[in-house]
Amino acid sequence: MDGNKNSVIRLLKYKTILLRFRILGFKRVFSENLADAAGFNSTQVRKDFSLFGISGYRRGGYQIDELLCKLNSILGKDVLQKAVIVGAGHIGTALMKYKSFESEGIQITAAFDVDPEKINREGNIPVYPFDELKDFVRNNNIKIGILAVTEVFAQEVFDTMVSAGIKGVLNFAPFKLKGSSETFINNVDLLGELEKVIYFVKSAESRLKGSK
Amino acid sequence: MDGNKNSVIRLLKYKTILLRFRILGFKRVFSENLADAAGFNSTQVRKDFSLFGISGYRRGGYQIDELLCKLNSILGKDVLQKAVIVGAGHIGTALMKYKSFESEGIQITAAFDVDPEKINREGNIPVYPFDELKDFVRNNNIKIGILAVTEVFAQEVFDTMVSAGIKGVLNFAPFKLKGSSETFINNVDLLGELEKVIYFVKSAESRLKGSK
Repeated sequence: MDGNKNSVIRLLKYKTILLRFRILGFKRVFSENLADAAGFNSTQVRKDFSLFGISGYRRGGYQIDELLCKLNSILGKDVLQKAVIVGAGHIGTALMKYKSFESEGIQITAAFDVDPEKINREGNIPVYPFDELKDFVRNNNIKIGILAVTEVFAQEVFDTMVSAGIKGVLNFAPFKLKGSSETFINNVDLLGELEKVIYFVKSAESRLKGSK
Repeated sequence: MDGNKNSVIRLLKYKTILLRFRILGFKRVFSENLADAAGFNSTQVRKDFSLFGISGYRRGGYQIDELLCKLNSILGKDVLQKAVIVGAGHIGTALMKYKSFESEGIQITAAFDVDPEKINREGNIPVYPFDELKDFVRNNNIKIGILAVTEVFAQEVFDTMVSAGIKGVLNFAPFKLKGSSETFINNVDLLGELEKVIYFVKSAESRLKGSK
């Protein structure tokens, strides 16, 4: 399945679009609709579907519910996904309250922090002491973790997560984690993303000045 | 400069690494050090530097301070960058408090929201009513905006930002914004990023089951 990484990323995009179409009251969709919304061409959409055995293409388009059902089963989202957050700071807390996760079948079961003031065992999503991470992850068979601690602690926290059984990490710490090939790490670099915006604006401004 | 997009993204990465090296007390660095930390090879690092006229490579390595100074001037970070946040919900608030922005010379000057309860004119970073966005952006000559509202309002808010003079937007709303080629949009799709992690873990699990 590894070679299909890009098409999987596209399938995730189609799914997001389909969910929005459904909210808007659509019942069926054409590959052209999906292509326009995703920014690809419709041949690409049909190719991706056929690669994963979705052959339901007809002149009448795809039934959105049916398509979503197939995509969910391909993407492994037919069962509720459980995840934990490590680091209950500003970013971690924002993610605990991020509504899109739950509406997509992802359940943040708990958060963990070293700071005693952040502990809240009675919360809607409880915040436990970091010491309890290992047992919690093992007992609840959790494979997905979100890392939202400062970079100084990132590697140590990551190692603990992995030793407890976490297999995939969404990392918000601006730190290149060292892990084995058995653990999937996806880095979200918020500063880097904002810096890209700044650079492109600066770059466009200098072009404008140059052409005056 | 457009054709150099990827090398610019690499320069931003080098900069982040150099800042970390400096925190660790390093004074100089070799292209090999940068390559290891960035996950490229050292030829790539030297090629990127020479593309932007950084020719200071010697057997003694690069002086970190000098290199950072050159990178900052290339990347347009020699002056303080001002940005506004629209949407003072969980994500917006987390970004207002995100320390890495300020330490990188990015100043979040204000946030805006439609919810009267979120308004706080006296805050460290003030939160103003959304109605005041246009005047504020114009009067303060702000070009960079962070969009952190729900998808329903995303396009409307984006259009207001652009009409006020914003040229680059970091978008957290799960919505494909329609803009002109004059505005740079960088999308951060938090749900999509977490879904990638879930998919890869699921995919690895099925491979394991298959090989048993």
